[in-house]
Amino acid sequence: MACIFCRIIKGEIPSFKLFESEKTLAFLDIGPLSKGHSLIIPKHHGAKLTDIPDDQLLEVLAVTKKIATATGATDYNILQNNGRIAHQMVDHVHFHFIPKPNEEEGLQIGWPTKEADKGALATYLEELKAKM
Amino acid sequence: MACIFCRIIKGEIPSFKLFESEKTLAFLDIGPLSKGHSLIIPKHHGAKLTDIPDDQLLEVLAVTKKIATATGATDYNILQNNGRIAHQMVDHVHFHFIPKPNEEEGLQIGWPTKEADKGALATYLEELKAKM
Ligand SMILES: [Zn+2]
Ligand SMILES: [Zn+2]
Repeated sequence: MACIFCRIIKGEIPSFKLFESEKTLAFLDIGPLSKGHSLIIPKHHGAKLTDIPDDQLLEVLAVTKKIATATGATDYNILQNNGRIAHQMVDHVHFHFIPKPNEEEGLQIGWPTKEADKGALATYLEELKAKM
Repeated sequence: MACIFCRIIKGEIPSFKLFESEKTLAFLDIGPLSKGHSLIIPKHHGAKLTDIPDDQLLEVLAVTKKIATATGATDYNILQNNGRIAHQMVDHVHFHFIPKPNEEEGLQIGWPTKEADKGALATYLEELKAKM
């Protein structure tokens, strides 16, 4: 089995385990961006968020909250990356909990926003709604 | 009422609404990082993730998946920021769904990681588990 997170779930690779239930596992990231950087994962294997059944995701945010509270972090980011270009490194869905204690540590975010054309947004909205 | 997202929920401010249920609202971001950039929010008001009761968060990831599927995005980031230093701009919990179609558009991520001291991680793990 190639998936490193599935091997962690099976106990074939050790981890700094914070939480485990039938559906969910959480452990400290060993390449942290800041102290307390943790990963919360569904045990169900899938590369991207859309590959995971809804019911396998139900505990993820509650567990993330538990960890956030335990760390005492007041500023933090929750991040889930899908695809190499979006910075995903392991192809098993994982949510990062990343404390942001100061400018230097934690997640660095660039936000190249531009105001949208409202007409184009309205048109695209209808397109999307038709597919939902 | 000062909270702009609570005003959107009440319909006092218009939005490009994608989804609405008893607990959850989703709409297009009007300052998108890429086409399809959407916000998924619990209707329950709270500034940070730890301020929202677990049961008010149960639909968030399922709705995010629905939108991701409708956009057809293969690469995308899910991001939820808590605190000014962590890039939170509106103090009502919101999850960003941000397609990453290419290097230039979408979320820009900096990842200043450093390998952790394994002994320090093990010690901190015990500290955190005692608080969970
Ligand atoms: Zn896996
Ligand atoms: Zn609000």
